[in-house]
Amino acid sequence: MRAAFFAGNQQFQVGPCVPVEPGPGQVRIRVEYCGICGTDLHLFHGAMAHRLTLPHIMGHEMSGTIAAAGPGADAWKPGGRVTVRPLDPCGACPACRMGHSHICHNLKFIGIDRPGALQGSWTVPAHTLHRLPPNLGMREAAMVEPIAVACHDVRLSELSSGESAVVIGGGPIGILISLVARSRGARVLLAEVNEYRLRLARDLGIDAANPRETDLVALVNERTGGAGADVVFEVSGSQPGAEMMTRLPRTRGRIVVVAIFGEAPKIDLFRFFWRELKLAGARVYEPADFEAAIELAASGTLPLGRLITDVLPLDRLEDAMRQMERGGDCMKILVNCTE
Amino acid sequence: MRAAFFAGNQQFQVGPCVPVEPGPGQVRIRVEYCGICGTDLHLFHGAMAHRLTLPHIMGHEMSGTIAAAGPGADAWKPGGRVTVRPLDPCGACPACRMGHSHICHNLKFIGIDRPGALQGSWTVPAHTLHRLPPNLGMREAAMVEPIAVACHDVRLSELSSGESAVVIGGGPIGILISLVARSRGARVLLAEVNEYRLRLARDLGIDAANPRETDLVALVNERTGGAGADVVFEVSGSQPGAEMMTRLPRTRGRIVVVAIFGEAPKIDLFRFFWRELKLAGARVYEPADFEAAIELAASGTLPLGRLITDVLPLDRLEDAMRQMERGGDCMKILVNCTE
Repeated sequence: MRAAFFAGNQQFQVGPCVPVEPGPGQVRIRVEYCGICGTDLHLFHGAMAHRLTLPHIMGHEMSGTIAAAGPGADAWKPGGRVTVRPLDPCGACPACRMGHSHICHNLKFIGIDRPGALQGSWTVPAHTLHRLPPNLGMREAAMVEPIAVACHDVRLSELSSGESAVVIGGGPIGILISLVARSRGARVLLAEVNEYRLRLARDLGIDAANPRETDLVALVNERTGGAGADVVFEVSGSQPGAEMMTRLPRTRGRIVVVAIFGEAPKIDLFRFFWRELKLAGARVYEPADFEAAIELAASGTLPLGRLITDVLPLDRLEDAMRQMERGGDCMKILVNCTE
Repeated sequence: MRAAFFAGNQQFQVGPCVPVEPGPGQVRIRVEYCGICGTDLHLFHGAMAHRLTLPHIMGHEMSGTIAAAGPGADAWKPGGRVTVRPLDPCGACPACRMGHSHICHNLKFIGIDRPGALQGSWTVPAHTLHRLPPNLGMREAAMVEPIAVACHDVRLSELSSGESAVVIGGGPIGILISLVARSRGARVLLAEVNEYRLRLARDLGIDAANPRETDLVALVNERTGGAGADVVFEVSGSQPGAEMMTRLPRTRGRIVVVAIFGEAPKIDLFRFFWRELKLAGARVYEPADFEAAIELAASGTLPLGRLITDVLPLDRLEDAMRQMERGGDCMKILVNCTE
């Protein structure tokens, strides 16, 4: 079994994985597939370096089977197929005490603050586990984590059937939000500037427009009888996206900020006043979102196979990062951690 | 009876008021008192000039008695004591059809888009009227409109008893929000930089701090056990206020934007993601807010007499504007429209 060790400086070294015996309340997992997230690319580029202990093992979108269970975790039998909700909250801070442990003040994100899944053997707290149903393939199961992000975003938006939603940004999360929103009965429009992503979205049957070519405000108004969209998801993390998000919603429309904005953009607060808009930030997921994501993934209604644009062995992890850097020709890349 | 005609260029001319006979569904009111709002000062300084027909009569915070009722408005008997909710929605746009007529796409604000209350005789649609209870004095009743703003803001914040609220900005609306929030059982902290306003707020028993002298974030964290505030009202309309509003709330805390931001401030959207903050814009009021404001004003629990810092005759309207311009020594100025 092997592991990909990130040494900083955009360098990985693949070497033998050292299995960690599961302690009390822990399990050891034989990892099968692990997806690469935009966050991993940020780590690769040097972001959040203060949170990493080098050499660091990345990865938090995975599927695998239980290899061994530590004391008190014996409800998890060897061979059981699982995925991991990679959050380790403190349980004691004001957020945890209010029941919002996914946004714990001292949250440890497994794969950043702790070693991640890009290794053959991975030891994690058992409270992070979710069982996979037999009809969900292991490749598709590695997509549960980003689907859970989308389920969380759509849940916080309070989107209901028949409503109109605009998703700004068509990377993996934007496309998954579009698909989850569609599965909830919403009419969805995706805004994306990258032609590859636009084409892929349209191939998946998502109504998509390039805001550099199409007057998005006019299009949304036309489709909503002049009212505006019920919900807007900002997933681009860009100043143009932050401007667009306030121009599209109807009176009392809802905006969900999904993207991570490194710099504070200018926001048209007048528009919030004028139309009594609402905005909610959304971060990761709660257990119910993982369960919803597993159910949706297992239903077979999401075109997950089309979103997985490549499956590479561990020692080609750097290639995967370079492919994502270029952006124009990939969506979700999985790493086969058994090879 | 007289009226104050705004001629543009920071000039008023007081002349005879020409009573307008009430048409179908209208009433004519004998105006007693009319408060001066920050919006009136903006009009005086030339703002929203395109919405005014000169000479324009300002004023929308008033009390008065019914003088005459037009056809179909005869439920309103002469002598009845009333105040006016100065909104005239179109009834046909998407916002009106969704039941949000107070943020109608074509809303006419009476006192800006239509002649206002700074005159002895004022004719308005009967659907704007609210009855005043006998135990509410006419001066205090002229405060119902700004109290209704505060009731609307507090209602949209979903503030509940025992929660902590921070109000950024201690002008008339900020102080009224503080008082309404306190009446709902919240623990309130008001942030204000003007020493006169700070002193007045403290005289009214409001816990108030100057954010230029006090570390507001540390103070709020200390008072909330490190959690942060449940609700923050941004009433300052300033870039420092827009920055502070995202630093104070707890995880899943709520921000209500009350101020009218002429320019788009920089907003820390990362903080919305990190703490899953919520933000809602709030504009004017709905009928229920006027009823709540009347009930609260009539209860005698609000120190309205202390907030009314001057009562002037119509021909001293320019003096009132100059006093508000200086800012440092007045809160709410009423005009006696009967003189």
